[in-house]
Amino acid sequence: MKGRRDFFPPLDIGAGRIELGHGSGGRATAQLIEELFSAAFDNDWLRGMNDQASFEAPPGRLVLTTDSFVVSPLFFPGGDIGCLAVNGTVNDIAMAGAKPLYLSASFILEEGFPLADLHRVVQSMAVAARAAGVAIITGDTKVVERGKADGVFITTTGVGNVPDATRIDASRARPNDRIILSGTLGDHGVAVLSRRENLHFETELRSDSAPLHELVAAMLAVAPDLHCLRDPTRGGLAAVLNEWARQSDVGMIIHERAIPIRPEVAAACEFLGLDPLYLANEGKLVAVCPPQSAEDVVRAMRRHPLGRDATIIGEVRADAHRAVEMETAFGGRRLVDWLSSDPLPRIC
Amino acid sequence: MKGRRDFFPPLDIGAGRIELGHGSGGRATAQLIEELFSAAFDNDWLRGMNDQASFEAPPGRLVLTTDSFVVSPLFFPGGDIGCLAVNGTVNDIAMAGAKPLYLSASFILEEGFPLADLHRVVQSMAVAARAAGVAIITGDTKVVERGKADGVFITTTGVGNVPDATRIDASRARPNDRIILSGTLGDHGVAVLSRRENLHFETELRSDSAPLHELVAAMLAVAPDLHCLRDPTRGGLAAVLNEWARQSDVGMIIHERAIPIRPEVAAACEFLGLDPLYLANEGKLVAVCPPQSAEDVVRAMRRHPLGRDATIIGEVRADAHRAVEMETAFGGRRLVDWLSSDPLPRIC
Repeated sequence: MKGRRDFFPPLDIGAGRIELGHGSGGRATAQLIEELFSAAFDNDWLRGMNDQASFEAPPGRLVLTTDSFVVSPLFFPGGDIGCLAVNGTVNDIAMAGAKPLYLSASFILEEGFPLADLHRVVQSMAVAARAAGVAIITGDTKVVERGKADGVFITTTGVGNVPDATRIDASRARPNDRIILSGTLGDHGVAVLSRRENLHFETELRSDSAPLHELVAAMLAVAPDLHCLRDPTRGGLAAVLNEWARQSDVGMIIHERAIPIRPEVAAACEFLGLDPLYLANEGKLVAVCPPQSAEDVVRAMRRHPLGRDATIIGEVRADAHRAVEMETAFGGRRLVDWLSSDPLPRIC
Repeated sequence: MKGRRDFFPPLDIGAGRIELGHGSGGRATAQLIEELFSAAFDNDWLRGMNDQASFEAPPGRLVLTTDSFVVSPLFFPGGDIGCLAVNGTVNDIAMAGAKPLYLSASFILEEGFPLADLHRVVQSMAVAARAAGVAIITGDTKVVERGKADGVFITTTGVGNVPDATRIDASRARPNDRIILSGTLGDHGVAVLSRRENLHFETELRSDSAPLHELVAAMLAVAPDLHCLRDPTRGGLAAVLNEWARQSDVGMIIHERAIPIRPEVAAACEFLGLDPLYLANEGKLVAVCPPQSAEDVVRAMRRHPLGRDATIIGEVRADAHRAVEMETAFGGRRLVDWLSSDPLPRIC
């Protein structure tokens, strides 16, 4: 890049707002990219101002994943849409057993959105990307008229690489496999919903947003034969288990007593009428692995800060109905169905 | 995939509408993905219902690019947001001299959006992807409340591969290089704007949306030393030339008489007060190449249906001010500056 354009005053990040001109592909767009996005993400790919970025393909297979983030509110205890957009896509790569390498980021901005908020979001993305060891190498920015979006929507797409031998897949759960959960359920969902409803609890509930690829690497080091792996985001643990049951043609049973839930999250769920099995998490994972390696996997997870509360929560069963059931704390059983009609929108 | 879920009636694509539940990660989300997206894009990656897709890395470097599409109206003469979202990303890959391989697609849907419109958009994407020889291998769907988006926004991200020797870059324009344009300017921008303003002209103005990777391959076959290549979408030809002038530290001169513009587009521009140099195109490219290969490149382009009107429109010059100038049809000169404050939003 050849020094800044001299005809425009610098962006007023303190008091400025997104205007339609920032999306028209002219000088204002270039200025926004240069002073806000390139400055934060800071790499030669972005400084090259091409419409794409190129890199050497690493050995092994490649993994591609994408996610749009539309969370409301944009800022919540423990995170914001920016760190979610990076960690969410890093985690979707990690759930294939892959190492996250590169991200793209595309922004849909609403006219009038404060540049200060955008700056805060972009800084949060930059910090999260550095922490996860990924580079944001290409992007796009569009602006829509006031009232045609909700502040900012972010779509991140990630590329990672995975050894040829790793074959984690939703269809690989087998009867007698163990179901492992990495930690407490519901922290993110409750943090977002309580902020949205403006509820205050004695203890602040914080999102668990975090990158999980190192935890996954630790698991694969002791159990290269992991069968299934997923982060229970939107739809929660219930959606993940039902999806796997369906794709693998098996049933599942989980044990309520084994599922770690923070007391304050349990209390908030009771107050809000929510079931933690359906709440989004942004720094947790569920795994299915053969019974003989389950204990080793849990031990390896507990040595990692993001897996301290890891535990076996259930088993895979042969079941033509592909039912997911929970043995309740009182010894009964209940069906853990998909979330059907009751929506929990804009949680990630 | 194991046969369809039997507890839900099939989607009512004729009369149904997007509901918040379609974005909650539960059964309605799975049904939308299965019956609408997977059915149209039709490949084993999507049927696997994982949160990511994996593939063997081809030899050479990889290219990554992303774009969000927010065009209004969604349907216009010659195309719609669906074919734009595929061709736009295919073209951004092609502009690195790369072969497009895989796409991801992420949808932000507004509550109440008709399923019939979504189906039409998704079918258009499927047709465009097949025509361009790319597979849509992973995706995401989010739903926001009514009034928080504008029907549908689509973000596509593409991966392609490029031979190690190809080094097309915005910084490689050199004095005396020739500037080549593949065809008429302004068709897409005028088609969208006239539909938006509900204007009717004697001849229907149609978008030029098309995938350009084969045209690029034909160019590289005769001139592997192409210096710069870009599709003049948002911001138009003016933005591309100014970006290159700046990144390459050169000036440019183009000749108005040499620039092909359809008479009906010229008339519409005059009527609407628009300058075709700033209008978006979705099936055109601009190239900068060394003078000795320019004629060969133009000849090769003219043999391809998308390059029939290809022509040399100007030259690169040494210029410390990095000015882009146009020699007008009347022999004068004018500065072709970036589009500055006058926005043409939602055109792609």
